[in-house]
Amino acid sequence: MSPSPARITAVDTYDIRFPTSRELDGSDAMNPDPDYSAAYVVLRTDAADGHEGHGFTFTIGRGNEVQVAAIEALRGHVVGRPVDELCADPGTLNRDLIGDSQLRWLGPEKGVMHMAIGAVVNAVWDLAARRAGKPLWQLLAGAEPEWLVRQIDFRYLTDALTPEEALTILRRGREGAEERTARLLERGYPAYTTSPGWLGYDDAKLTRLATQAVADGFRQIKLKVGADLDDDIRRCRVARAVVGPDVRMAIDANQRWDVDEAIRWTKALTEFDPYWIEEPTSPDDILGHAAIRRAVAPVKVATGEHAHNRIVFKQLLQAGAIDVLQLDAARVGGVNENLAILLLAAKFGVPVCPHAGGVGLCELVQHLAMFDYLAVSGTTDDRVVEYVDHLHDHFLDPVRIRDGHYLAPTAPGFSAAMRPESIARYTFPDGTFWAADRDDTNKKGQAA
Amino acid sequence: MSPSPARITAVDTYDIRFPTSRELDGSDAMNPDPDYSAAYVVLRTDAADGHEGHGFTFTIGRGNEVQVAAIEALRGHVVGRPVDELCADPGTLNRDLIGDSQLRWLGPEKGVMHMAIGAVVNAVWDLAARRAGKPLWQLLAGAEPEWLVRQIDFRYLTDALTPEEALTILRRGREGAEERTARLLERGYPAYTTSPGWLGYDDAKLTRLATQAVADGFRQIKLKVGADLDDDIRRCRVARAVVGPDVRMAIDANQRWDVDEAIRWTKALTEFDPYWIEEPTSPDDILGHAAIRRAVAPVKVATGEHAHNRIVFKQLLQAGAIDVLQLDAARVGGVNENLAILLLAAKFGVPVCPHAGGVGLCELVQHLAMFDYLAVSGTTDDRVVEYVDHLHDHFLDPVRIRDGHYLAPTAPGFSAAMRPESIARYTFPDGTFWAADRDDTNKKGQAA
Repeated sequence: MSPSPARITAVDTYDIRFPTSRELDGSDAMNPDPDYSAAYVVLRTDAADGHEGHGFTFTIGRGNEVQVAAIEALRGHVVGRPVDELCADPGTLNRDLIGDSQLRWLGPEKGVMHMAIGAVVNAVWDLAARRAGKPLWQLLAGAEPEWLVRQIDFRYLTDALTPEEALTILRRGREGAEERTARLLERGYPAYTTSPGWLGYDDAKLTRLATQAVADGFRQIKLKVGADLDDDIRRCRVARAVVGPDVRMAIDANQRWDVDEAIRWTKALTEFDPYWIEEPTSPDDILGHAAIRRAVAPVKVATGEHAHNRIVFKQLLQAGAIDVLQLDAARVGGVNENLAILLLAAKFGVPVCPHAGGVGLCELVQHLAMFDYLAVSGTTDDRVVEYVDHLHDHFLDPVRIRDGHYLAPTAPGFSAAMRPESIARYTFPDGTFWAADRDDTNKKGQAA
Repeated sequence: MSPSPARITAVDTYDIRFPTSRELDGSDAMNPDPDYSAAYVVLRTDAADGHEGHGFTFTIGRGNEVQVAAIEALRGHVVGRPVDELCADPGTLNRDLIGDSQLRWLGPEKGVMHMAIGAVVNAVWDLAARRAGKPLWQLLAGAEPEWLVRQIDFRYLTDALTPEEALTILRRGREGAEERTARLLERGYPAYTTSPGWLGYDDAKLTRLATQAVADGFRQIKLKVGADLDDDIRRCRVARAVVGPDVRMAIDANQRWDVDEAIRWTKALTEFDPYWIEEPTSPDDILGHAAIRRAVAPVKVATGEHAHNRIVFKQLLQAGAIDVLQLDAARVGGVNENLAILLLAAKFGVPVCPHAGGVGLCELVQHLAMFDYLAVSGTTDDRVVEYVDHLHDHFLDPVRIRDGHYLAPTAPGFSAAMRPESIARYTFPDGTFWAADRDDTNKKGQAA
C-alpha cells in the first residue's frame, strides 16, 4: 500500500493590526490615520518537511476582520489538496478560486474577495518556494517559460496579450539572465523611499529624512501631496532644495483629485520638477488618467497600487494612460495575476515600479521586481521599487537595503512569514498589545 | 427639558439563502448553480412610530457571510444617529460610509465593502420613505432638484457631470411630471422577462415560457447564451419562432467571452435579430465593450449589473461603450450613487434598462426606474425593467406585474422588507429550512 500523499490540513487566519496611526506614519491626503494591518493566513500540511505557506492581505485597520472572513470563505477550496500537486501548479488553485461562481459574484475579481484570493495564492507560492528551497524570485526566474504561461489566466486579456505573445516575451527574457543574476546578487535592485514624505510630518522632519535618504544612496524620494496646495508648494520646495536637481522626486496624491483638479494641481507643482504624479484620481478612472497624462506631460503619470485586477492594467496600457505601472503584491489575485501584469507591461513597453510599504509589501514585491529583471523586462532602467522603513522587524526574513537597493533575499520562500511573537502581540483584539491597550483605556476612564 | 431625539438603536443582520440551485432557476454561462441569497440588514430606532429600515445585498450563495460581516463593519457609523437628521439627508451618511478611509482601502468603492454600504444606505432610504408615508419613487420624484443634487457625491464625476449640469437636468425633468405620474399609476412601467431563457431549461420549457411571456403582454424577452454556440443558435431559433419578429429578444452572455470571441459569437447569432448583447465580457472592460459595440452594431451592447460604481458608468458613457445602461439597485453604494448614475445616463442620452431578478432586485429597482421616468429622462421609450418571476412571495410588498408592466408600488418604503417567516425559514445555517435539510442529509448518510 502506497502512503497517501501529503495534503493541506489547515488554513489558519489571523487579524493582525499595528497601531501606526499614533505616529502619523503613513498619513496621506486620503488616509489620515491608518493602522497598518494584515489579514494573515497560514497553510499547514501533514508533510514530513514541516513547511508552512504564509500569505496576507494588507489593510489599514477597520474592516480587517471582513478580509479575514473572506479568506476563511476560501478554506474549502484549499484544505485536502495534495501538497505536491498544489505546489507544482498553483495556477490550478488560482483558477479554481477565481472561478468559484458563487464567490465570484462578490467581485468579480475585485475588492475584499479578490484580495483574499491573493493572500491564499501567495501563501501557496510561499510554500512552493520553501519546498523548493529557493527564494521565490529564483524559483520564478528559473522556471520554464511554458510552465509560467500555464500559470496565467488569460481570460479577458487576449485582445491585448495572447499566450503565444507571453511565451515569446518570456523566451526572449531569458537571454543574458545569468549575467543579470550575478549583477542582482552583487548590487541588488534599485529602490526609492517614501519615508521622508508623509503628509503628517513637519518641514524639519521632512528635511532631516530627505537628507538622510540621499545620504543612504536613494536616487528617488516621494512626497505625499493633495491636501493643501500652498503646503505642497512649500514642502516640494523644501524637498527639492534638500535633494538637489539630480535626485528624482515623485509626488503622490493618493486619489485625492477629480480629473481637472489633478491637472491644475500637478501643473502648479511642475516648477519643482516632479518625476511622476502618482494616483492623481480614482484608480478606476482609466480614461481620467489618460486625460491627465496628456495634460501634465512631461510629468509622468503613475498608478496601480489600487488597480484591482489585470483587466484594469490592460486598459491603462491600451489607453496610454500611464508612464509607470505600480503593481502591488497583495491587491490582485496573487503571483499568478501579477505574472500576467508584468507580461502586459513588457508587451506595452511600460516600466514597472512596484508599490510597497504598508506592512510586508516590501518583503513580497521585491521578489516580483527581481523576477521581472531576470526573466521579463531584462532591465532596471527607470525602474525602482518603493521602500518604506516601517515594521520590517516583524518579519522573519525582512528586506535588506544597501546603498538605495534591495538586496536579493536568499532564504527560501516569499519572505511573507511574520515572527510568531509579533503575531501573538498584535492580533486584534486579544493579542497582548491590544489587550493591554484596552486595560489602559479602561483605567484612564475609571480615574477620570 | 426637551426629550432627546429618536436615534438608530440597532443594525441587525441576517444571512438569508434560498436553495434555488436545485431547480436550475437562474442558471447561465457563468453561474451554473446559484443559491439566491441576501445579506440583509434592518435598522431599528427608538422612535414612537416603530418604523424600521430594510435593505440588502444580493449574492448567489457562498460568501454571503462575508457580505454580512461587511455590513456589520459599518455599524459604528449608523447606531446612535438621530433618525430625523438621517432621513432628512441620507447623503451625509452615504459620504461618511464611502469616506471612511480605513474601510475605503478594502475597495475603494467596489466589491464586498461597497455593496455593504449600498445595503445600509438603501435601508436608510426605506426608513425615510416609510416615515414620509410614501413609496420611494414618489418621495424621490417629489423632492426638490437642489436637495437631490446634494444627495450625490460628485467626486470623480465632474469631468463628465457637474452639480450645475445635474441641477439643470432635474429642473427640466420636472416638466410634465404630473401627466407622467397619472400615466404611470394607470399603466405602470414597461418590463421585459428573463424567465424563459435560463441556460438550464430544455427547448420545451423555453417554448412554453416564451409563449407564456408574449401572452402575458411582454414585448421583450431575454435568453442566456455563451456556453455552446450550436445550442445558442438552436435556442435563439426556437425562441424567435415562438415570439415572432416584433417582440424584442435580448441575449445575455454573463461575462463569458473575451473581446474577439464576443464579436464572433454575437455575429453568429445576428440572424435571429437580437436586440442587445448583454455582458459580453468582463464588466471592468470599458475599452473592450467599446470595441465590441463598434463591431456588432446594429446589435446593441448592454451592461451594468456588475459595474461597481459611478466611475465605471461614467467611463462606459464617455467611451461610447454601451447602448443600454443596466444599473442595479444593490451593487453600487445605494440610492445616492444610483441618482448619479441616472443623471450621467441622461447627460449622455443613453437609456437605462435596470437589471433585476435575483431575490428582491425587482422590488427595489422599480422605484429607481419610475423616478427616472417622472423626474430625469421623462420617457419610457426604449426603456424596460428586467423581470424574473422568482421569490417575490417572500416580500411584504411584492412587485405587481400587469400586461408586461410593473405597477407602481403604493406602500410606503422601498419594498425591501422580507416576510418575517421567510427570514426565519431561510436564515443560514440555522433557519428551519436549512436545519431540516441538514437533518435529511445526515439521515440519508446514516441509512447508506
